[in-house]
Amino acid sequence: MNLRALGEDRLLDRLLPDLPRNAGVVLGAGDDCAVVESGKPGLLHLLKTDCLVEGIHFAKSSPPQQVGWKAMARPLSDFAAMSGVPQFALVTLIVPARRTISWVRQLYRGIEKVARKFEVAVVGGETSNIKGPAVISISITGFVERKRWVGRAGGKAGDELFVTGRLGGSLRGHHLKFVPRIDESRWLTKNFPIHAMMDLSDGLGTDLPRLARASRVGFEVDETALPLNRGCTIREAISDGEDYELLFAISPRHSARLQKSWRKRFLKVGLTRIGRLNQKSKIKNQKFPVGYVHFKQR
Amino acid sequence: MNLRALGEDRLLDRLLPDLPRNAGVVLGAGDDCAVVESGKPGLLHLLKTDCLVEGIHFAKSSPPQQVGWKAMARPLSDFAAMSGVPQFALVTLIVPARRTISWVRQLYRGIEKVARKFEVAVVGGETSNIKGPAVISISITGFVERKRWVGRAGGKAGDELFVTGRLGGSLRGHHLKFVPRIDESRWLTKNFPIHAMMDLSDGLGTDLPRLARASRVGFEVDETALPLNRGCTIREAISDGEDYELLFAISPRHSARLQKSWRKRFLKVGLTRIGRLNQKSKIKNQKFPVGYVHFKQR
Repeated sequence: MNLRALGEDRLLDRLLPDLPRNAGVVLGAGDDCAVVESGKPGLLHLLKTDCLVEGIHFAKSSPPQQVGWKAMARPLSDFAAMSGVPQFALVTLIVPARRTISWVRQLYRGIEKVARKFEVAVVGGETSNIKGPAVISISITGFVERKRWVGRAGGKAGDELFVTGRLGGSLRGHHLKFVPRIDESRWLTKNFPIHAMMDLSDGLGTDLPRLARASRVGFEVDETALPLNRGCTIREAISDGEDYELLFAISPRHSARLQKSWRKRFLKVGLTRIGRLNQKSKIKNQKFPVGYVHFKQR
Repeated sequence: MNLRALGEDRLLDRLLPDLPRNAGVVLGAGDDCAVVESGKPGLLHLLKTDCLVEGIHFAKSSPPQQVGWKAMARPLSDFAAMSGVPQFALVTLIVPARRTISWVRQLYRGIEKVARKFEVAVVGGETSNIKGPAVISISITGFVERKRWVGRAGGKAGDELFVTGRLGGSLRGHHLKFVPRIDESRWLTKNFPIHAMMDLSDGLGTDLPRLARASRVGFEVDETALPLNRGCTIREAISDGEDYELLFAISPRHSARLQKSWRKRFLKVGLTRIGRLNQKSKIKNQKFPVGYVHFKQR
Protein backbone atom coordinates (compact mmCIF):
# COMPACT_ATOMS: atom_id res chain seq x y z
CA MET A 1 0.00 0.00 0.00
CA ASN A 2 1.36 3.44 -0.82
CA LEU A 3 0.81 6.77 0.91
CA ARG A 4 -1.68 8.11 -1.61
CA ALA A 5 -4.07 5.27 -0.81
CA LEU A 6 -3.80 5.85 2.93
CA GLY A 7 -4.02 9.63 3.49
CA GLU A 8 -2.12 11.74 5.98
CA ASP A 9 -4.41 11.46 8.99
CA ARG A 10 -4.40 7.71 8.88
CA LEU A 11 -0.65 7.55 8.30
CA LEU A 12 -0.16 9.60 11.46
CA ASP A 13 -2.72 7.44 13.30
CA ARG A 14 -0.54 4.45 12.54
CA LEU A 15 2.77 6.02 13.48
CA LEU A 16 1.88 8.09 16.53
CA PRO A 17 0.98 5.47 19.15
CA ASP A 18 4.49 4.01 18.90
CA LEU A 19 6.45 7.24 19.26
CA PRO A 20 8.92 7.46 22.10
CA ARG A 21 7.75 9.71 24.98
CA ASN A 22 9.34 10.91 28.20
CA ALA A 23 8.26 12.47 31.50
CA GLY A 24 8.40 16.03 30.14
CA VAL A 25 5.65 15.53 27.56
CA VAL A 26 2.32 17.15 28.48
CA LEU A 27 0.68 16.73 25.07
CA GLY A 28 2.39 14.93 22.19
CA ALA A 29 1.55 14.86 18.49
CA GLY A 30 -2.04 15.42 17.39
CA ASP A 31 -2.88 18.98 18.48
CA ASP A 32 -1.73 22.27 16.94
CA CYS A 33 1.49 22.37 18.95
CA ALA A 34 3.24 19.88 21.22
CA VAL A 35 3.17 20.90 24.89
CA VAL A 36 6.10 20.07 27.16
CA GLU A 37 7.20 20.97 30.68
CA SER A 38 9.38 24.09 30.89
CA GLY A 39 10.94 23.46 34.27
CA LYS A 40 9.11 26.53 35.62
CA PRO A 41 5.84 25.68 37.40
CA GLY A 42 3.65 28.35 35.81
CA LEU A 43 4.90 27.95 32.25
CA LEU A 44 4.68 25.32 29.55
CA HIS A 45 6.76 25.17 26.40
CA LEU A 46 5.21 24.82 22.97
CA LEU A 47 6.93 23.23 19.97
CA LYS A 48 5.73 23.29 16.38
CA THR A 49 7.16 22.41 12.99
CA ASP A 50 5.67 23.02 9.58
CA CYS A 51 6.81 22.74 5.97
CA LEU A 52 5.99 24.11 2.54
CA VAL A 53 6.77 22.05 -0.54
CA GLU A 54 6.98 23.55 -4.01
CA GLY A 55 4.39 22.02 -6.30
CA ILE A 56 2.20 21.07 -3.30
CA HIS A 57 1.84 24.16 -1.08
CA PHE A 58 3.08 26.81 -3.48
CA ALA A 59 3.88 27.14 -7.18
CA LYS A 60 7.29 27.70 -8.71
CA SER A 61 5.91 31.02 -9.93
CA SER A 62 4.69 32.16 -6.45
CA PRO A 63 6.45 35.34 -5.31
CA PRO A 64 9.24 34.07 -3.00
CA GLN A 65 8.68 36.79 -0.40
CA GLN A 66 5.07 35.66 0.00
CA VAL A 67 6.17 32.03 0.19
CA GLY A 68 8.56 32.96 3.00
CA TRP A 69 5.82 34.86 4.80
CA LYS A 70 3.50 31.85 4.58
CA ALA A 71 6.20 29.38 5.68
CA MET A 72 6.66 31.32 8.93
CA ALA A 73 3.04 32.44 9.39
CA ARG A 74 1.62 28.91 9.27
CA PRO A 75 3.38 27.54 12.38
CA LEU A 76 2.74 30.89 14.09
CA SER A 77 -0.95 30.30 13.42
CA ASP A 78 -0.59 27.05 15.38
CA PHE A 79 0.83 29.07 18.27
CA ALA A 80 -2.26 31.28 18.02
CA ALA A 81 -4.42 28.14 18.17
CA MET A 82 -2.92 27.30 21.58
CA SER A 83 -2.67 30.89 22.77
CA GLY A 84 1.10 30.59 22.89
CA VAL A 85 3.84 33.19 22.62
CA PRO A 86 6.38 32.22 19.94
CA GLN A 87 10.04 33.02 20.71
CA PHE A 88 12.59 31.18 18.58
CA ALA A 89 12.60 29.76 15.05
CA LEU A 90 14.83 27.37 13.12
CA VAL A 91 14.61 27.67 9.35
CA THR A 92 15.56 24.91 6.90
CA LEU A 93 15.83 25.79 3.22
CA ILE A 94 16.16 22.97 0.74
CA VAL A 95 16.68 24.54 -2.64
CA PRO A 96 17.92 23.28 -6.02
CA ALA A 97 21.42 24.59 -6.79
CA ARG A 98 20.30 26.33 -9.97
CA ARG A 99 17.87 28.58 -8.05
CA THR A 100 19.09 32.19 -7.87
CA ILE A 101 20.43 33.83 -4.75
CA SER A 102 17.92 36.60 -5.26
CA TRP A 103 15.06 34.06 -4.94
CA VAL A 104 16.48 32.83 -1.63
CA ARG A 105 16.99 36.38 -0.36
CA GLN A 106 13.40 37.31 -1.20
CA LEU A 107 12.15 34.18 0.53
CA TYR A 108 14.16 35.07 3.62
CA ARG A 109 12.81 38.60 3.54
CA GLY A 110 9.28 37.21 3.84
CA ILE A 111 10.31 34.94 6.71
CA GLU A 112 12.00 37.84 8.51
CA LYS A 113 9.05 40.17 8.03
CA VAL A 114 6.56 38.03 9.90
CA ALA A 115 9.20 36.96 12.45
CA ARG A 116 9.88 40.60 13.35
CA LYS A 117 6.18 41.36 13.55
CA PHE A 118 5.82 38.79 16.33
CA GLU A 119 9.29 39.32 17.88
CA VAL A 120 10.45 35.84 16.95
CA ALA A 121 14.23 35.36 16.71
CA VAL A 122 15.56 33.18 13.89
CA VAL A 123 18.33 31.38 15.79
CA GLY A 124 19.54 28.90 13.22
CA GLY A 125 18.69 26.49 10.53
CA GLU A 126 20.02 24.42 7.75
CA THR A 127 20.42 24.66 4.01
CA SER A 128 20.65 21.84 1.52
CA ASN A 129 20.67 21.18 -2.15
CA ILE A 130 17.89 19.04 -3.70
CA LYS A 131 17.44 17.51 -7.15
CA GLY A 132 13.77 18.45 -7.18
CA PRO A 133 11.30 21.00 -5.79
CA ALA A 134 12.23 23.51 -3.06
CA VAL A 135 11.20 22.80 0.54
CA ILE A 136 10.99 25.23 3.45
CA SER A 137 10.70 23.69 6.91
CA ILE A 138 10.35 25.93 9.98
CA SER A 139 10.29 24.91 13.64
CA ILE A 140 9.21 27.31 16.36
CA THR A 141 9.51 27.15 20.13
CA GLY A 142 7.78 29.36 22.65
CA PHE A 143 5.71 29.29 25.80
CA VAL A 144 2.22 29.57 27.21
CA GLU A 145 1.13 30.16 30.79
CA ARG A 146 -0.13 26.86 32.26
CA LYS A 147 -3.45 28.54 33.08
CA ARG A 148 -3.93 29.88 29.58
CA TRP A 149 -3.09 27.09 27.19
CA VAL A 150 -5.98 25.84 25.12
CA GLY A 151 -6.08 22.59 23.16
CA ARG A 152 -8.72 20.99 21.01
CA ALA A 153 -9.98 18.62 23.67
CA GLY A 154 -11.69 20.91 26.20
CA GLY A 155 -14.97 21.65 24.37
CA LYS A 156 -18.20 20.89 26.24
CA ALA A 157 -21.71 20.16 24.98
CA GLY A 158 -23.58 23.46 24.98
CA ASP A 159 -20.51 25.59 24.22
CA GLU A 160 -20.94 28.17 21.53
CA LEU A 161 -18.62 28.08 18.51
CA PHE A 162 -16.97 31.21 17.18
CA VAL A 163 -14.69 31.96 14.25
CA THR A 164 -12.54 35.04 13.68
CA GLY A 165 -12.38 36.86 10.35
CA ARG A 166 -13.94 35.52 7.16
CA LEU A 167 -13.81 32.13 5.48
CA GLY A 168 -13.35 30.77 1.95
CA GLY A 169 -11.52 31.68 -1.24
CA SER A 170 -8.08 31.73 0.39
CA LEU A 171 -6.29 30.54 -2.73
CA ARG A 172 -7.08 33.86 -4.42
CA GLY A 173 -4.33 35.40 -2.27
CA HIS A 174 -5.14 35.31 1.45
CA HIS A 175 -3.11 32.09 1.98
CA LEU A 176 0.13 33.93 1.09
CA LYS A 177 -0.59 37.05 3.14
CA PHE A 178 -2.58 36.12 6.25
CA VAL A 179 -1.68 37.45 9.68
CA PRO A 180 -1.56 34.76 12.39
CA ARG A 181 -4.23 35.51 15.03
CA ILE A 182 -1.76 35.60 17.91
CA ASP A 183 -2.83 38.99 19.29
CA GLU A 184 -6.49 37.95 19.16
CA SER A 185 -5.77 34.60 20.78
CA ARG A 186 -3.70 36.09 23.60
CA TRP A 187 -6.45 38.64 24.25
CA LEU A 188 -9.08 35.89 24.30
CA THR A 189 -7.35 33.75 26.93
CA LYS A 190 -6.43 36.77 29.01
CA ASN A 191 -10.05 37.84 29.26
CA PHE A 192 -12.20 34.73 28.79
CA PRO A 193 -12.17 31.04 29.69
CA ILE A 194 -11.82 29.41 26.27
CA HIS A 195 -12.61 25.67 26.39
CA ALA A 196 -11.16 24.54 23.08
CA MET A 197 -9.45 26.26 20.17
CA MET A 198 -7.67 25.53 16.89
CA ASP A 199 -6.70 27.34 13.72
CA LEU A 200 -8.57 26.63 10.50
CA SER A 201 -5.92 25.34 8.12
CA ASP A 202 -7.76 22.56 6.28
CA GLY A 203 -11.21 24.20 6.21
CA LEU A 204 -14.03 24.29 8.75
CA GLY A 205 -15.49 21.10 7.25
CA THR A 206 -12.36 19.15 8.16
CA ASP A 207 -11.18 21.04 11.21
CA LEU A 208 -14.41 21.39 13.23
CA PRO A 209 -14.98 17.60 13.24
CA ARG A 210 -11.41 17.26 14.57
CA LEU A 211 -12.10 19.65 17.44
CA ALA A 212 -15.41 17.90 18.20
CA ARG A 213 -13.76 14.47 18.07
CA ALA A 214 -10.94 15.58 20.38
CA SER A 215 -13.55 16.98 22.81
CA ARG A 216 -15.78 13.88 22.46
CA VAL A 217 -18.84 15.94 21.57
CA GLY A 218 -20.95 16.61 18.50
CA PHE A 219 -21.54 19.92 16.73
CA GLU A 220 -24.10 21.85 14.77
CA VAL A 221 -23.37 24.81 12.52
CA ASP A 222 -25.71 27.47 11.20
CA GLU A 223 -24.36 27.60 7.68
CA THR A 224 -26.20 30.83 6.92
CA ALA A 225 -24.28 32.50 9.75
CA LEU A 226 -20.84 31.72 8.32
CA PRO A 227 -18.78 34.88 7.67
CA LEU A 228 -18.03 34.55 3.95
CA ASN A 229 -15.22 36.24 2.12
CA ARG A 230 -16.42 38.39 -0.76
CA GLY A 231 -17.60 36.28 -3.68
CA CYS A 232 -17.51 33.00 -1.74
CA THR A 233 -20.24 30.41 -1.40
CA ILE A 234 -21.05 28.63 1.86
CA ARG A 235 -19.55 25.48 0.41
CA GLU A 236 -16.28 27.27 -0.32
CA ALA A 237 -16.19 28.74 3.19
CA ILE A 238 -16.55 25.22 4.56
CA SER A 239 -14.13 23.36 2.34
CA ASP A 240 -11.56 25.66 0.70
CA GLY A 241 -9.19 25.62 3.69
CA GLU A 242 -6.14 27.81 4.42
CA ASP A 243 -8.25 30.39 6.26
CA TYR A 244 -5.87 30.51 9.25
CA GLU A 245 -8.66 31.94 11.36
CA LEU A 246 -9.36 30.82 14.93
CA LEU A 247 -12.20 28.42 15.74
CA PHE A 248 -13.04 28.23 19.43
CA ALA A 249 -15.62 27.00 21.94
CA ILE A 250 -16.79 29.02 24.93
CA SER A 251 -19.62 28.70 27.44
CA PRO A 252 -22.79 30.58 26.31
CA ARG A 253 -22.79 32.61 29.51
CA HIS A 254 -19.75 34.55 28.25
CA SER A 255 -21.10 35.00 24.75
CA ALA A 256 -22.65 38.46 25.01
CA ARG A 257 -19.73 40.03 26.90
CA LEU A 258 -17.25 38.41 24.50
CA GLN A 259 -18.93 39.83 21.41
CA LYS A 260 -19.20 43.29 22.92
CA SER A 261 -15.57 43.45 24.14
CA TRP A 262 -14.28 42.02 20.88
CA ARG A 263 -15.91 44.73 18.81
CA LYS A 264 -14.28 47.37 21.00
CA ARG A 265 -10.84 45.77 20.88
CA PHE A 266 -10.56 44.54 17.28
CA LEU A 267 -11.84 46.93 14.69
CA LYS A 268 -10.67 45.15 11.56
CA VAL A 269 -11.17 41.49 12.44
CA GLY A 270 -14.69 40.17 12.87
CA LEU A 271 -15.94 37.56 15.33
CA THR A 272 -18.91 35.38 14.40
CA ARG A 273 -20.94 32.83 16.34
CA ILE A 274 -21.40 29.95 13.90
CA GLY A 275 -23.00 27.20 15.98
CA ARG A 276 -22.50 25.09 19.06
CA LEU A 277 -21.18 21.84 20.45
CA ASN A 278 -23.75 19.24 21.46
CA GLN A 279 -24.08 15.78 23.00
CA LYS A 280 -22.64 13.42 20.47
CA SER A 281 -25.27 10.75 20.96
CA LYS A 282 -28.37 12.91 20.71
CA ILE A 283 -28.02 14.78 17.45
CA LYS A 284 -26.12 13.53 14.44
CA ASN A 285 -23.25 15.74 13.29
CA GLN A 286 -23.82 17.67 10.15
CA LYS A 287 -22.17 16.16 7.13
CA PHE A 288 -19.57 18.52 5.78
CA PRO A 289 -17.87 18.42 2.42
CA VAL A 290 -14.30 17.33 3.01
CA GLY A 291 -11.51 19.93 3.30
CA TYR A 292 -8.00 19.63 1.99
CA VAL A 293 -6.29 16.33 2.77
CA HIS A 294 -2.61 15.75 1.94
CA PHE A 295 -1.69 12.66 -0.07
CA LYS A 296 -5.23 12.26 -1.37
CA GLN A 297 -5.98 13.45 -4.83
CA ARG A 298 -9.46 14.74 -5.39
CA MET B 1 24.23 34.13 -9.46
CA ASN B 2 22.85 30.75 -8.41
CA LEU B 3 23.46 28.75 -5.24
CA ARG B 4 25.93 26.32 -6.79
CA ALA B 5 28.29 29.16 -7.59
CA LEU B 6 28.08 30.55 -4.05
CA GLY B 7 28.35 27.56 -1.67
CA GLU B 8 26.51 27.01 1.58
CA ASP B 9 28.87 28.77 3.99
CA ARG B 10 28.83 31.96 1.98
CA LEU B 11 25.05 31.79 1.50
CA LEU B 12 24.65 31.62 5.28
CA ASP B 13 27.22 34.42 5.72
CA ARG B 14 25.01 36.62 3.60
CA LEU B 15 21.73 35.74 5.25
CA LEU B 16 22.68 35.50 8.91
CA PRO B 17 23.60 39.08 9.83
CA ASP B 18 20.08 40.22 8.95
CA LEU B 19 18.15 37.62 10.93
CA PRO B 20 15.73 38.89 13.55
CA ARG B 21 16.96 38.38 17.14
CA ASN B 22 15.43 38.97 20.56
CA ALA B 23 16.58 39.28 24.17
CA GLY B 24 16.43 35.52 24.77
CA VAL B 25 19.14 34.66 22.26
CA VAL B 26 22.50 33.71 23.81
CA LEU B 27 24.06 32.34 20.62
CA GLY B 28 22.29 32.43 17.26
CA ALA B 29 23.06 30.64 14.02
CA GLY B 30 26.63 29.57 13.28
CA ASP B 31 27.53 27.05 16.00
CA ASP B 32 26.37 23.43 16.33
CA CYS B 33 23.16 24.39 18.20
CA ALA B 34 21.46 27.67 18.94
CA VAL B 35 21.61 28.65 22.62
CA VAL B 36 18.70 30.52 24.21
CA GLU B 37 17.67 31.54 27.72
CA SER B 38 15.52 28.97 29.50
CA GLY B 39 14.00 31.22 32.15
CA LYS B 40 15.89 29.23 34.82
CA PRO B 41 19.19 30.85 35.88
CA GLY B 42 21.34 27.72 35.80
CA LEU B 43 20.04 26.28 32.55
CA LEU B 44 20.20 27.19 28.89
CA HIS B 45 18.07 25.75 26.13
CA LEU B 46 19.55 24.31 22.96
CA LEU B 47 17.77 24.18 19.60
CA LYS B 48 18.90 22.32 16.52
CA THR B 49 17.41 21.37 13.17
CA ASP B 50 18.83 19.11 10.51
CA CYS B 51 17.64 17.54 7.27
CA LEU B 52 18.40 14.62 4.99
CA VAL B 53 17.55 14.85 1.31
CA GLU B 54 17.28 11.80 -0.93
CA GLY B 55 19.82 11.95 -3.72
CA ILE B 56 22.06 14.28 -1.66
CA HIS B 57 22.49 12.73 1.81
CA PHE B 58 21.20 9.23 1.11
CA ALA B 59 20.35 7.07 -1.90
CA LYS B 60 16.90 5.84 -2.88
CA SER B 61 18.28 2.36 -2.28
CA SER B 62 19.57 3.11 1.25
CA PRO B 63 17.84 0.95 3.89
CA PRO B 64 15.08 3.24 5.30
CA GLN B 65 15.70 2.19 8.90
CA GLN B 66 19.32 3.35 8.61
CA VAL B 67 18.21 6.58 6.95
CA GLY B 68 15.86 7.20 9.90
CA TRP B 69 18.65 6.47 12.35
CA LYS B 70 20.94 8.94 10.60
CA ALA B 71 18.26 11.64 10.36
CA MET B 72 17.87 11.63 14.15
CA ALA B 73 21.50 10.86 15.04
CA ARG B 74 22.91 13.84 13.14
CA PRO B 75 21.20 16.62 15.15
CA LEU B 76 21.88 14.57 18.31
CA SER B 77 25.56 14.72 17.36
CA ASP B 78 25.22 18.53 17.44
CA PHE B 79 23.86 18.24 20.97
CA ALA B 80 26.96 16.19 21.82
CA ALA B 81 29.09 18.96 20.32
CA MET B 82 27.67 21.42 22.87
CA SER B 83 27.46 18.91 25.71
CA GLY B 84 23.67 19.26 25.73
CA VAL B 85 20.94 16.89 26.85
CA PRO B 86 18.36 16.38 24.09
CA GLN B 87 14.72 16.11 25.23
CA PHE B 88 12.12 16.63 22.51
CA ALA B 89 12.03 16.08 18.76
CA LEU B 90 9.76 17.19 15.92
CA VAL B 91 9.92 15.02 12.82
CA THR B 92 8.91 16.18 9.33
CA LEU B 93 8.58 13.57 6.61
CA ILE B 94 8.18 14.75 3.04
CA VAL B 95 7.61 11.68 0.92
CA PRO B 96 6.30 11.09 -2.61
CA ALA B 97 2.81 9.58 -2.57
CA ARG B 98 3.89 6.47 -4.45
CA ARG B 99 6.36 5.49 -1.70
CA THR B 100 5.16 2.46 0.31
CA ILE B 101 3.87 2.62 3.85
CA SER B 102 6.39 -0.04 4.76
CA TRP B 103 9.23 2.30 3.71
CA VAL B 104 7.87 5.04 5.98
CA ARG B 105 7.40 2.62 8.87
CA GLN B 106 10.98 1.37 8.55
CA LEU B 107 12.24 4.93 8.44
CA TYR B 108 10.28 5.73 11.60
CA ARG B 109 11.65 2.64 13.29
CA GLY B 110 15.18 3.97 12.77
CA ILE B 111 14.19 7.38 14.13
CA GLU B 112 12.56 5.80 17.18
CA LYS B 113 15.50 3.52 17.88
CA VAL B 114 18.01 6.31 18.37
CA ALA B 115 15.41 8.52 20.10
CA ARG B 116 14.76 5.85 22.71
CA LYS B 117 18.49 5.27 23.20
CA PHE B 118 18.88 8.90 24.30
CA GLU B 119 15.43 9.23 25.96
CA VAL B 120 14.25 11.78 23.42
CA ALA B 121 10.46 12.10 23.04
CA VAL B 122 9.08 12.57 19.54
CA VAL B 123 6.34 15.09 20.30
CA GLY B 124 5.06 15.92 16.86
CA GLY B 125 5.85 16.66 13.31
CA GLU B 126 4.45 17.05 9.89
CA THR B 127 4.00 14.96 6.78
CA SER B 128 3.70 16.14 3.23
CA ASN B 129 3.61 14.85 -0.28
CA ILE B 130 6.34 15.91 -2.74
CA LYS B 131 6.73 15.47 -6.49
CA GLY B 132 10.41 14.63 -6.11
CA PRO B 133 12.90 13.13 -3.67
CA ALA B 134 12.05 12.32 -0.03
CA VAL B 135 13.15 14.77 2.69
CA ILE B 136 13.42 14.14 6.44
CA SER B 137 13.75 17.21 8.63
CA ILE B 138 14.19 16.82 12.41
CA SER B 139 14.29 19.55 15.05
CA ILE B 140 15.45 18.84 18.59
CA THR B 141 15.21 20.90 21.77
CA GLY B 142 16.98 20.24 25.04
CA PHE B 143 19.12 21.88 27.67
CA VAL B 144 22.64 22.34 28.96
CA GLU B 145 23.80 23.62 32.32
CA ARG B 146 25.06 27.20 31.93
CA LYS B 147 28.41 26.15 33.41
CA ARG B 148 28.83 23.22 31.07
CA TRP B 149 27.95 24.46 27.61
CA VAL B 150 30.79 24.46 25.14
CA GLY B 151 30.84 26.27 21.82
CA ARG B 152 33.44 26.55 19.10
CA ALA B 153 34.75 29.92 20.19
CA GLY B 154 36.52 29.21 23.49
CA GLY B 155 39.75 27.62 22.23
CA LYS B 156 43.04 29.21 23.42
CA ALA B 157 46.52 29.17 21.90
CA GLY B 158 48.40 26.31 23.53
CA ASP B 159 45.31 24.10 24.00
CA GLU B 160 45.69 20.50 22.98
CA LEU B 161 43.33 19.09 20.36
CA PHE B 162 41.66 15.73 20.81
CA VAL B 163 39.31 13.62 18.71
CA THR B 164 37.17 10.69 19.81
CA GLY B 165 36.95 7.43 17.85
CA ARG B 166 38.46 6.98 14.40
CA LEU B 167 38.29 9.05 11.24
CA GLY B 168 37.74 8.44 7.53
CA GLY B 169 35.88 6.05 5.26
CA SER B 170 32.47 6.86 6.75
CA LEU B 171 30.60 6.33 3.48
CA ARG B 172 31.37 2.61 3.68
CA GLY B 173 28.68 2.37 6.37
CA HIS B 174 29.55 4.34 9.51
CA HIS B 175 27.52 7.39 8.35
CA LEU B 176 24.28 5.38 8.59
CA LYS B 177 25.04 3.71 11.92
CA PHE B 178 27.07 6.06 14.09
CA VAL B 179 26.25 6.66 17.74
CA PRO B 180 26.17 10.36 18.72
CA ARG B 181 28.88 11.01 21.34
CA ILE B 182 26.47 12.40 23.92
CA ASP B 183 27.58 10.17 26.80
CA GLU B 184 31.21 10.97 26.09
CA SER B 185 30.53 14.69 25.82
CA ARG B 186 28.51 14.84 29.05
CA TRP B 187 31.28 12.95 30.83
CA LEU B 188 33.90 15.34 29.45
CA THR B 189 32.20 18.52 30.66
CA LYS B 190 31.35 16.96 34.01
CA ASN B 191 34.99 16.13 34.70
CA PHE B 192 37.10 18.58 32.68
CA PRO B 193 37.10 22.21 31.61
CA ILE B 194 36.67 21.90 27.84
CA HIS B 195 37.46 25.17 26.06
CA ALA B 196 35.92 24.50 22.64
CA MET B 197 34.18 21.56 21.02
CA MET B 198 32.33 20.57 17.85
CA ASP B 199 31.31 17.40 16.04
CA LEU B 200 33.12 16.37 12.88
CA SER B 201 30.43 16.29 10.22
CA ASP B 202 32.23 17.74 7.20
CA GLY B 203 35.67 16.28 7.90
CA LEU B 204 38.54 17.45 10.10
CA GLY B 205 39.96 19.44 7.16
CA THR B 206 36.84 21.61 7.02
CA ASP B 207 35.73 21.53 10.65
CA LEU B 208 38.99 22.22 12.50
CA PRO B 209 39.55 25.49 10.57
CA ARG B 210 36.00 26.48 11.62
CA LEU B 211 36.76 25.87 15.29
CA ALA B 212 40.06 27.74 15.01
CA ARG B 213 38.42 30.65 13.19
CA ALA B 214 35.63 30.88 15.81
CA SER B 215 38.29 30.87 18.56
CA ARG B 216 40.52 33.36 16.66
CA VAL B 217 43.56 31.10 16.87
CA GLY B 218 45.61 28.96 14.53
CA PHE B 219 46.18 25.21 14.66
CA GLU B 220 48.73 22.54 13.90
CA VAL B 221 47.96 18.85 13.46
CA ASP B 222 50.30 15.89 13.63
CA GLU B 223 48.86 14.00 10.68
CA THR B 224 50.71 10.82 11.62
CA ALA B 225 48.84 10.82 14.95
CA LEU B 226 45.36 10.79 13.37
CA PRO B 227 43.30 7.75 14.42
CA LEU B 228 42.51 6.17 11.06
CA ASN B 229 39.65 3.80 10.38
CA ARG B 230 40.81 0.49 8.97
CA GLY B 231 41.96 0.83 5.36
CA CYS B 232 41.89 4.64 5.38
CA THR B 233 44.61 7.03 4.33
CA ILE B 234 45.47 10.20 6.25
CA ARG B 235 43.94 12.18 3.43
CA GLU B 236 40.64 10.28 3.76
CA ALA B 237 40.62 10.81 7.51
CA ILE B 238 40.99 14.53 6.92
CA SER B 239 38.53 15.02 4.11
CA ASP B 240 35.94 12.22 3.89
CA GLY B 241 33.61 13.80 6.48
CA GLU B 242 30.58 12.29 8.26
CA ASP B 243 32.74 10.97 11.12
CA TYR B 244 30.41 12.40 13.79
CA GLU B 245 33.24 12.23 16.29
CA LEU B 246 34.01 14.99 18.79
CA LEU B 247 36.85 17.45 18.25
CA PHE B 248 37.75 19.48 21.32
CA ALA B 249 40.37 21.77 22.82
CA ILE B 250 41.61 21.52 26.41
CA SER B 251 44.49 23.04 28.38
CA PRO B 252 47.63 20.83 28.29
CA ARG B 253 47.71 20.70 32.09
CA HIS B 254 44.64 18.39 32.02
CA SER B 255 45.94 16.23 29.20
CA ALA B 256 47.49 13.36 31.15
CA ARG B 257 44.61 12.99 33.62
CA LEU B 258 42.09 13.19 30.77
CA GLN B 259 43.70 10.40 28.79
CA LYS B 260 44.02 8.16 31.82
CA SER B 261 40.42 8.68 33.03
CA TRP B 262 39.07 8.28 29.51
CA ARG B 263 40.67 4.87 29.06
CA LYS B 264 39.06 3.71 32.30
CA ARG B 265 35.64 5.07 31.45
CA PHE B 266 35.30 4.33 27.73
CA LEU B 267 36.55 0.93 26.67
CA LYS B 268 35.30 0.91 23.08
CA VAL B 269 35.80 4.51 22.00
CA GLY B 270 39.32 5.83 21.66
CA LEU B 271 40.62 9.32 22.44
CA THR B 272 43.56 10.71 20.49
CA ARG B 273 45.62 13.86 20.82
CA ILE B 274 46.02 15.12 17.27
CA GLY B 275 47.65 18.54 17.65
CA ARG B 276 47.21 21.91 19.24
CA LEU B 277 45.89 25.42 18.82
CA ASN B 278 48.48 28.17 18.36
CA GLN B 279 48.85 31.91 17.93
CA LYS B 280 47.38 32.69 14.58
CA SER B 281 49.99 35.23 13.62
CA LYS B 282 53.08 33.21 14.45
CA ILE B 283 52.68 29.96 12.55
CA LYS B 284 50.71 29.54 9.36
CA ASN B 285 47.83 27.08 9.54
CA GLN B 286 48.33 23.81 7.78
CA LYS B 287 46.64 23.62 4.44
CA PHE B 288 43.98 20.93 4.51
CA PRO B 289 42.22 19.35 1.58
CA VAL B 290 38.65 20.61 1.61
CA GLY B 291 35.88 18.49 3.21
CA TYR B 292 32.34 18.13 1.98
CA VAL B 293 30.63 21.38 1.06
CA HIS B 294 26.94 21.50 0.14
CA PHE B 295 25.96 23.16 -3.14
CA LYS B 296 29.47 22.79 -4.53
CA GLN B 297 30.10 19.99 -6.93
CA ARG B 298 33.61 18.63 -6.88
